[in-house]
Amino acid sequence: MFRFSFSTLAGFCAGIGLFVFAVVSATDNHLMFISLSSFGLVFGSTMAASLISYSTLDVLHAVRSMLHTFLHPPTSQTHLKKLVARFVEWSSLYRQGGIVALEESLTSQEKKDEFLRAGIDLIGSGYKNHDIRIMLTDQMDATWQRHTLESKVLNTMAIYSPGFGMMGTIVGLIIMLDNLNGDMAGLGKGLALALITTLYGVLLANLFFKPAANQVTEKQETMYFRHQLISEGFVLLAEKRDAIYIQDRLNAFIKPSVREQILSGDL
Amino acid sequence: MFRFSFSTLAGFCAGIGLFVFAVVSATDNHLMFISLSSFGLVFGSTMAASLISYSTLDVLHAVRSMLHTFLHPPTSQTHLKKLVARFVEWSSLYRQGGIVALEESLTSQEKKDEFLRAGIDLIGSGYKNHDIRIMLTDQMDATWQRHTLESKVLNTMAIYSPGFGMMGTIVGLIIMLDNLNGDMAGLGKGLALALITTLYGVLLANLFFKPAANQVTEKQETMYFRHQLISEGFVLLAEKRDAIYIQDRLNAFIKPSVREQILSGDL
Amino acid sequence: MFRFSFSTLAGFCAGIGLFVFAVVSATDNHLMFISLSSFGLVFGSTMAASLISYSTLDVLHAVRSMLHTFLHPPTSQTHLKKLVARFVEWSSLYRQGGIVALEESLTSQEKKDEFLRAGIDLIGSGYKNHDIRIMLTDQMDATWQRHTLESKVLNTMAIYSPGFGMMGTIVGLIIMLDNLNGDMAGLGKGLALALITTLYGVLLANLFFKPAANQVTEKQETMYFRHQLISEGFVLLAEKRDAIYIQDRLNAFIKPSVREQILSGDL
Amino acid sequence: MFRFSFSTLAGFCAGIGLFVFAVVSATDNHLMFISLSSFGLVFGSTMAASLISYSTLDVLHAVRSMLHTFLHPPTSQTHLKKLVARFVEWSSLYRQGGIVALEESLTSQEKKDEFLRAGIDLIGSGYKNHDIRIMLTDQMDATWQRHTLESKVLNTMAIYSPGFGMMGTIVGLIIMLDNLNGDMAGLGKGLALALITTLYGVLLANLFFKPAANQVTEKQETMYFRHQLISEGFVLLAEKRDAIYIQDRLNAFIKPSVREQILSGDL
Amino acid sequence: MFRFSFSTLAGFCAGIGLFVFAVVSATDNHLMFISLSSFGLVFGSTMAASLISYSTLDVLHAVRSMLHTFLHPPTSQTHLKKLVARFVEWSSLYRQGGIVALEESLTSQEKKDEFLRAGIDLIGSGYKNHDIRIMLTDQMDATWQRHTLESKVLNTMAIYSPGFGMMGTIVGLIIMLDNLNGDMAGLGKGLALALITTLYGVLLANLFFKPAANQVTEKQETMYFRHQLISEGFVLLAEKRDAIYIQDRLNAFIKPSVREQILSGDL
Repeated sequence: MFRFSFSTLAGFCAGIGLFVFAVVSATDNHLMFISLSSFGLVFGSTMAASLISYSTLDVLHAVRSMLHTFLHPPTSQTHLKKLVARFVEWSSLYRQGGIVALEESLTSQEKKDEFLRAGIDLIGSGYKNHDIRIMLTDQMDATWQRHTLESKVLNTMAIYSPGFGMMGTIVGLIIMLDNLNGDMAGLGKGLALALITTLYGVLLANLFFKPAANQVTEKQETMYFRHQLISEGFVLLAEKRDAIYIQDRLNAFIKPSVREQILSGDL
Repeated sequence: MFRFSFSTLAGFCAGIGLFVFAVVSATDNHLMFISLSSFGLVFGSTMAASLISYSTLDVLHAVRSMLHTFLHPPTSQTHLKKLVARFVEWSSLYRQGGIVALEESLTSQEKKDEFLRAGIDLIGSGYKNHDIRIMLTDQMDATWQRHTLESKVLNTMAIYSPGFGMMGTIVGLIIMLDNLNGDMAGLGKGLALALITTLYGVLLANLFFKPAANQVTEKQETMYFRHQLISEGFVLLAEKRDAIYIQDRLNAFIKPSVREQILSGDL
Repeated sequence: MFRFSFSTLAGFCAGIGLFVFAVVSATDNHLMFISLSSFGLVFGSTMAASLISYSTLDVLHAVRSMLHTFLHPPTSQTHLKKLVARFVEWSSLYRQGGIVALEESLTSQEKKDEFLRAGIDLIGSGYKNHDIRIMLTDQMDATWQRHTLESKVLNTMAIYSPGFGMMGTIVGLIIMLDNLNGDMAGLGKGLALALITTLYGVLLANLFFKPAANQVTEKQETMYFRHQLISEGFVLLAEKRDAIYIQDRLNAFIKPSVREQILSGDL
Repeated sequence: MFRFSFSTLAGFCAGIGLFVFAVVSATDNHLMFISLSSFGLVFGSTMAASLISYSTLDVLHAVRSMLHTFLHPPTSQTHLKKLVARFVEWSSLYRQGGIVALEESLTSQEKKDEFLRAGIDLIGSGYKNHDIRIMLTDQMDATWQRHTLESKVLNTMAIYSPGFGMMGTIVGLIIMLDNLNGDMAGLGKGLALALITTLYGVLLANLFFKPAANQVTEKQETMYFRHQLISEGFVLLAEKRDAIYIQDRLNAFIKPSVREQILSGDL
Repeated sequence: MFRFSFSTLAGFCAGIGLFVFAVVSATDNHLMFISLSSFGLVFGSTMAASLISYSTLDVLHAVRSMLHTFLHPPTSQTHLKKLVARFVEWSSLYRQGGIVALEESLTSQEKKDEFLRAGIDLIGSGYKNHDIRIMLTDQMDATWQRHTLESKVLNTMAIYSPGFGMMGTIVGLIIMLDNLNGDMAGLGKGLALALITTLYGVLLANLFFKPAANQVTEKQETMYFRHQLISEGFVLLAEKRDAIYIQDRLNAFIKPSVREQILSGDL
């Protein structure tokens, strides 16, 4: 269901590449930019503060969702259009063959989709449109509530990491200033070292945590939108509305230029 | 439908011009301010981080909408007033000649307007006012949902670009500090170079990304407002309300001083 | 209807005066603080970026609304109390003499008030309370939508102006650093000049754009509140409610200590 | 009704005391930290900008509400519990003795409470529960609207004061830099003086304006909550509900551990 | 009911440990980083400003909730699933044995749960589903209102503490600058000392106040969600719905993969 996103990978490589190129082209002393202890301080403190802020499970989910930035959710206009077409088909199947015909028509992918599954089950249990709307809305909101936590955790990390980077720099500054003497070269090296943690903090936030948080938020919003379309579809199925009405109601959710008029006619 | 906006072009030229003038009048060494590698680092990283945050299509849409800042949407008070007048005309046409008369009266521009088109189609399909309200509201909200993404992407760029500008400056600072010796002139040149990326980051954000994001947001809000007026209009048409009532209801959406009393009378 | 606000003028003069005094009392070289080119850069870029962000008309409205900061809207408790008293009078007039008596009683100021005018017209057209509520609410919200744009533009200016001030300072810094040599006095003068744009940016934001944005927002909110009271009043008039009921309902909108019991009695 | 808050006074003295102690223990030259002209610049500009942003009356109300930070509103759980008990008593009194019995039972403090007073008056005028709910809700919202202005003004001051402090420092910096020569001691004294306005700005914001704004906001929210409880109570009184029902409905507003079961029973 | 959270403790130790390690590995002069007077200034001022902003009780509650960051609330998916199972059991018990059977089935832990207790009491008092919904919603919102105060206080502390840290640094800077002479070592030591308060402020905010505020907010939101599930459950109980319906309605609140189909069947 989820498709690999090459653009995300490209963006990621480009971001890292540009940074490496900027460093390599400007100095021969590249190793200066690699400091495991500085990285450990910034990354470690960020994770530590996240573990205090959220439960272990939530932090793990957030980290997992960072890996998922390479996957596309099935929420493009083309996907949504196919969904509309499916609901139009289902309406005929359901009115003729009942729930049995409906279940037989499901592809294996549709069976794995939690939300579609839930809708079919409710239709199968014989619930009325009113009950189906309540239950699917509750499930939609509960899913939203669970998943927003991931973007909250990532946003929190994006805020903590430059904070701890700056803290590392202040510690470095204090140590350097305490030993201040007229030696300019020593002062320079001390400052350079102190600034590395700030660099790591900003880098982690801008290339990892913030983009991941943005993407997770975006995915959740488009998934929520898809769930709205599906809920509406099942309510209309349960109301045994005709195919044209269902098509017109669900078409309203997608881009006019993408809509395919599967059926048309006067009511 | 969209009109070219000379003020946007003027604003754009003035912003760039003022900056160039400030540089040129203050120093002879203008070339110092042009650094392709610095620009590449800031602009490239911003785009890279945007590609991680959003899908390629969304980033392309956002870039396209930046070019559209030179176009005015049809949402001025004059446009809205004409819309009200059209609905008043349509109410008579529809009550006398039905949907055929309505469709014949459409100008070619109106036919290309997705939202007006959708409303006419719904009237033509014979839907009741209740269904028309639901479908147009769903379409209005789905359009809004799709289009806000553009301003989100631009806002994200406006946040990333000064961030990466600052990151470039920190890298430059670290390199310079690492080689610090008593040479004041060398220190100065190093700092000057390091600051260029910050300048580019702030410039890109303040003259390109932020204004574009503001404008796109503003356009979407006025388009949403226009869609509300149109939805209301079609619901009233479907209810076969008389022209005076439609005029009074829709006039409420526009500025009192602009309203033209096309018809007046006691009910 | 709008009254001149001496306190705004006083605040304005005090703000400028304190700043001028701080400069004059601290240095003899006052002219250093006056730099037309720096002011041009900051103010010009701010306006340029605003023109890209919003349409010319919106920017002009925002500038005009800055001048209006010297005017008070008719939304003080005393004004609102008088409005309540008027609605109580109108209820008797309308129940006895109909719309003719109502229109005759209007003062010239009330006739110029767009929102009161709209309410009277709707009563005069014979609309029912339900329709009056919808139309006045639509008009209220459309007015709000149009006017919030002014405070948005001013807020945007308040954000742009320190940004461009800082940009000017970075340009100045880069030029100064590029020519760095051991000359302390030259370094000082360069830095001083570079900081002027930051000062202008902060000054423009803190003494002009931000206070104006705050005031415009505040005025719109109080006007919206006044419109709510008036809408409620016209709906009650259309319902032909008695004077005591109207008085009690509208009194709820104003401060208990200000309310005058024009009429009292058991229902 | 309002009680003096010793903890606020203690917090206030501790904040000032810690600051004074930090200064006194670190330097003998305390007078350096006292500069009437710097204080005048920061405080004066903040007030000036507030006067431009808001009307004189609103600024005065905000200043008065700063003095009220030493007073507790009657919104503790104990107060709310007593209110519930009163409504339970009133329900019996009203059902037996009517409005006369109700009014006789009021303590002098209750008579002075604007919101209780309004509720009793509405019951006395014979309004139905529907009307009472509308009028008390309107009054509650209007009170909220008037009072939030105070916290808005204080928040605005908390934003302006560090801004003007920084502006004073920039002015000081410019003057100092303009006269820069090799004299280190002079440079130091100039910078020290320039920083005083920043210190004042931050101090005013952090010890006065921000805490006051926080407290005023908090008080308004608890008062709004109390008004909700009272509105609900009067609506239930007007519905002539029995004491147990009123007790159970109003108890839902207070902490379970605090609730006193004044009456209990099966319905 | 609340379980000890080892991950929070681990996060906390790791955060402190990383910081201590960073200091110890970089300098021998560790004692320089320990300054009781600096800590007293930052922590004391933060508490003082909090006491001015909120009542003593609210500050104490906030401090207590910081200690509670080591405890898990009963809101995991497993907990919620058990709750659903309990409501399904209760529905049979209640329909057969009435309120007596319901109360006998409560475990001692359930009896201590304020919100479950309240729901059972309302069922026991014989209230209808409509009244139960109102009262449980009122209690849920009142609990939310009381508890958000804790996260507000902690957020306020997280904002004050770096502010007062910076203020301490400005005081230190002013004193140091006032005594500036050519002595580099003295300048360094002065600056190092001045920066300690900033370090403390940032450390307190990032490792204590912010994580605690995030966690408290998160807990309140999950508790609110749990309360929604419970309210819904009691309303369904009062409506005497059958077990399958209750199971399906409440299952919508939890993750599909976790749901156990306790009962299944066609309606």
